[in-house]
Amino acid sequence: MKLIRYGQPGQEKPGVILHNQKYDVSAFGEDYTEAFFADNGLARLEAFVAASKEKLPSISDAERLGAPIARPSKIVCVGLNYADHAKETGATPPAEPVLFFKSTTALVGPDDAIIIPKNSTKTDWEVELAVIIGRKASYVEEADALSYVAGYALHNDVSEREFQLERSGTWDKGKGCDTFAPVGPFLATPDELGDLDNLRLWLSVNGQMMQDGTTANLIFKVPFLISYISQFMTLLPGDIISTGTPAGVGLGFKPPVYLKPGDVVELGIDGLGTSRQELKAYTK
Amino acid sequence: MKLIRYGQPGQEKPGVILHNQKYDVSAFGEDYTEAFFADNGLARLEAFVAASKEKLPSISDAERLGAPIARPSKIVCVGLNYADHAKETGATPPAEPVLFFKSTTALVGPDDAIIIPKNSTKTDWEVELAVIIGRKASYVEEADALSYVAGYALHNDVSEREFQLERSGTWDKGKGCDTFAPVGPFLATPDELGDLDNLRLWLSVNGQMMQDGTTANLIFKVPFLISYISQFMTLLPGDIISTGTPAGVGLGFKPPVYLKPGDVVELGIDGLGTSRQELKAYTK
Repeated sequence: MKLIRYGQPGQEKPGVILHNQKYDVSAFGEDYTEAFFADNGLARLEAFVAASKEKLPSISDAERLGAPIARPSKIVCVGLNYADHAKETGATPPAEPVLFFKSTTALVGPDDAIIIPKNSTKTDWEVELAVIIGRKASYVEEADALSYVAGYALHNDVSEREFQLERSGTWDKGKGCDTFAPVGPFLATPDELGDLDNLRLWLSVNGQMMQDGTTANLIFKVPFLISYISQFMTLLPGDIISTGTPAGVGLGFKPPVYLKPGDVVELGIDGLGTSRQELKAYTK
Repeated sequence: MKLIRYGQPGQEKPGVILHNQKYDVSAFGEDYTEAFFADNGLARLEAFVAASKEKLPSISDAERLGAPIARPSKIVCVGLNYADHAKETGATPPAEPVLFFKSTTALVGPDDAIIIPKNSTKTDWEVELAVIIGRKASYVEEADALSYVAGYALHNDVSEREFQLERSGTWDKGKGCDTFAPVGPFLATPDELGDLDNLRLWLSVNGQMMQDGTTANLIFKVPFLISYISQFMTLLPGDIISTGTPAGVGLGFKPPVYLKPGDVVELGIDGLGTSRQELKAYTK
């Protein structure tokens, strides 16, 4: 299944994609929240869709898409998880996963504008494979870890490098600005995806390819990450794990290249669609 | 007003404390969530309590207390915000606030057990003044910042020092384990509190005083912190800011002293009551 949410920000309705056509499933009566995933929502939704397929209203492609899940309890991110990216930032590949959080208020739809924060000069891009957790996960074994996955989605882990690296303390300051987590277009359940360890992921800025990697190069793979993170905190249904970005971010250029108003970022992952964000200056 | 939540974990009901007696306000019909604070809940609750004071059922002191607010969108913490604590950890007082997140799944009641995580040998304590945000805050001016506060509460920012400092990456790994955020006993609205800049805060382990500080020694004060954090992310109603801990944590001893099963931590802040947590080993 491919799950979407559509409509105005904060007013999103649930939908699904069937054979490349979007359908409204408001009649199902639930948003894609923690409660939905916890209560076997994916299986119930699948049964609902199978039973009512002919009657589902279609959704116009003109409709805005929101993030394909409602605001989760947390967005846990993995840093420096591709060796080529660690190298370009001047870091040594870590002995174990680097973790940080994105503020969940950063979550937006796949094609929403990215707002460059006030006083920001170093807003950067990062295409990432995001994992959406399907059930409560605490001290999970690596061998069982994939059974905790609801699905996958495309994520741009937008980052302000000065806030992240030059303003005292941890990375969190530069990762959770509003609009810094465009997710989607859709959540794909695992059966929709090809080989998880062989997905191409790419990102372009103004049409120029900047990142072009593959999940084959992940230092720490998805099952290990789920198991690892669950040693330090309980993951709840709907929580997002973002697995890190390959080489080609703005910070890695000599000199670095950052985003400015009017720039257009496009990104994609095999089987997870594409997204497009225009950069805007903060106003108000 | 003093707000409490009581009952079994996940089933908490709202209450208030009036003249040192706890009363149930389930009849008010709302939990203390983001929606409650956003929709002028404090003023509405105050009117409800004034109108129904004589009819409110009292709550037995035997009842478990939960955290005084429902799970928020985020718990933003400030590190090294007392010069004496920065010194004891070997850190230089930071030029600007150090920020990190606690996983919101760490939130528990004020007297709940603290579970020492699997494979943990360095579980530590930190008494802190927590600020609960009352309305959406983005790019707030320092002069207006206190108008964004719903209230204050006592918080033990429990920390696993190996996870935080020796396991690659940011501090978040050692801050968000389950039960690592006992908050309460109550949320006090600002009018209930004395001088915010002159509150004593203390913490003892097995009856021995370990931390004994005052908010007079905060490097960055509450209005500055709210304004500062709101430059990097939007704070939502119900969000928690934890303002840092004074000297006397286990990490600061030579050699360091950490918590073990059976230890009892007690802590308090002037006007915000006291809490008590017993340490337990993780089992299962």
